[in-house]
Amino acid sequence: MRGAVIHAPGDVRFETLDDPKISRPTDAIIRTVATCVCGSDLWPYRGAEPVGEPHPMGHEYVGIVEEVGTEVIHVKPGQFVVGSFATSDNTCANCRNGWQSSCLNREFMSTCQADYVRIPNAHGTLVATDDHPGAEFVPSLLAVSDVMGTGWYAALAAEVTPGSTAVVVGDGAVGLCGVIAARELGAERIIAMSRHESRQKLALDFGATDIVTERGEEGIARVKDLTGGIGADSVLECVGTPESMRQALHSARPGGNVGFVGVPHDVSVEGQELFFSQVGLRGGPAPVRRYLPDLIDRVLDGRINPGKVFDLTLPLDQVAEGYKAMDERRAIKALLKP
Amino acid sequence: MRGAVIHAPGDVRFETLDDPKISRPTDAIIRTVATCVCGSDLWPYRGAEPVGEPHPMGHEYVGIVEEVGTEVIHVKPGQFVVGSFATSDNTCANCRNGWQSSCLNREFMSTCQADYVRIPNAHGTLVATDDHPGAEFVPSLLAVSDVMGTGWYAALAAEVTPGSTAVVVGDGAVGLCGVIAARELGAERIIAMSRHESRQKLALDFGATDIVTERGEEGIARVKDLTGGIGADSVLECVGTPESMRQALHSARPGGNVGFVGVPHDVSVEGQELFFSQVGLRGGPAPVRRYLPDLIDRVLDGRINPGKVFDLTLPLDQVAEGYKAMDERRAIKALLKP
Repeated sequence: MRGAVIHAPGDVRFETLDDPKISRPTDAIIRTVATCVCGSDLWPYRGAEPVGEPHPMGHEYVGIVEEVGTEVIHVKPGQFVVGSFATSDNTCANCRNGWQSSCLNREFMSTCQADYVRIPNAHGTLVATDDHPGAEFVPSLLAVSDVMGTGWYAALAAEVTPGSTAVVVGDGAVGLCGVIAARELGAERIIAMSRHESRQKLALDFGATDIVTERGEEGIARVKDLTGGIGADSVLECVGTPESMRQALHSARPGGNVGFVGVPHDVSVEGQELFFSQVGLRGGPAPVRRYLPDLIDRVLDGRINPGKVFDLTLPLDQVAEGYKAMDERRAIKALLKP
Repeated sequence: MRGAVIHAPGDVRFETLDDPKISRPTDAIIRTVATCVCGSDLWPYRGAEPVGEPHPMGHEYVGIVEEVGTEVIHVKPGQFVVGSFATSDNTCANCRNGWQSSCLNREFMSTCQADYVRIPNAHGTLVATDDHPGAEFVPSLLAVSDVMGTGWYAALAAEVTPGSTAVVVGDGAVGLCGVIAARELGAERIIAMSRHESRQKLALDFGATDIVTERGEEGIARVKDLTGGIGADSVLECVGTPESMRQALHSARPGGNVGFVGVPHDVSVEGQELFFSQVGLRGGPAPVRRYLPDLIDRVLDGRINPGKVFDLTLPLDQVAEGYKAMDERRAIKALLKP
């Protein structure tokens, strides 16, 4: 089979690789129907994280089950399945609590930009659709496997409730999906912080009611202006930098909540600042598995269309161009078709 | 009148001071029935915070209303009242949201170790009891004005729910009141971290089911042992040091919550550590005003007896000895009677 391999910052190649094999009875092999490039893939691509030895890339996928291990009984060969970037047995104490992304047997996916993928913990990770979905649903189902699930978690961690005001920091695919999530959870006012016209447009399309283009102190002041002087009930932090975290914490009202889902890079939170803000803070890798059945239904019912974040579709063998386009911000998110 | 004045670390004196006067129509003057020394008063007393110019001390109080400003209509001269260390107008946007400790007109109390005290924002701060309570209730009502209200907030911020497991880090008066709060909110298992026999005894009396004497990595391992290997649902951080915060964060399970109420000193939380823990974190000065009616009822109904944290009672003129006894850990908390 063939798949993407990163060799160095800026150097992603499409290469022939060994076919994946069932190595444990809880594994499955899927034939990829669609995969994509994630914002977090850009950290090593940009040299902001070490690449180390050349290795495969990708953690987002939908596909058709090819083969399953003997202990995989929930899904069968031939079914269309959606999974998550974090695999989970769905039976351990953390899974039973609904925190499958902290499964005691968790393995993070990392080989999905390929024709075929081995899914560890397949029995607890994969969710099959009733039928093979129409091609028009594939981008949104793919989004559900990561960015939509992550935006959903951000909104839940930020405790968005009906009638509340939410701020979304970050206009990447996750932030845009966070707008969808805030709307679905009933936020009355959704303030998207964005400077890019195409992303502002998508945010408004997804349900944002206000766009704030300012950043830093000016951005905070603008949010305060829009929220009666005290800040928002909920803030979704979807970037992961010191600046975006500061923006988020200072945009929330006392007693409000920040859900942070951008993997933090060089971020630390000062104790007294957090203390006197009285803002609740929760982050982490999204427990997408918990949300999959609900989010798949919302996609197939036509309620949500997060697949719109894919503004570039390429054949899988052009994966390198997908990275390049996202790095240069020519694309929000690139979908890859084997 | 007379009251406590701190001149330098270790140097608290009982001195003659100007009588307080109504300076704004929202003020009240109360005659103190009981006041006390707080763990946070020990920060300047121990030189861990600058003292600056000599100044009065104390922020916990119950008393009899002597005089009210023209806009104070909720309480009347002669009534017994309980207040909070943070005054609040109870009408601003933050107060209406239930976050009175972030009132837009907040003033922190700081002159309460005295015969008479001026209460700013008296109309929104003071809650009167129906009758003058018996002397046996005074210590618990005094505790409600700060340590019990703060322990209550810690338990709510840590999202203690019926049947849950809670860990309390810190065996000072706030931590011990946190045990009461966790029990009242229905925690099935309450693990108190304490090395001091008298405090362990009080914790068990207040409802703790387990005592952990270990600290640091050993303390974390012990809590994990007691919580099925994953950590507790809720952790109440009632100290405010880097060590106690670390203890708290690592004692909570993925998806669990830490409520932190010890004012943080030199504490910072690393972003990726918090991210991958998936622990929710909320702290701050407790919105005691929100809880006062309920907590006063629980005291007068005999459901809770947080006044037991006062293991030393002194005449107010011996306030210096109260500081000394707490500094030397001879007393958990010193009650002062004018």
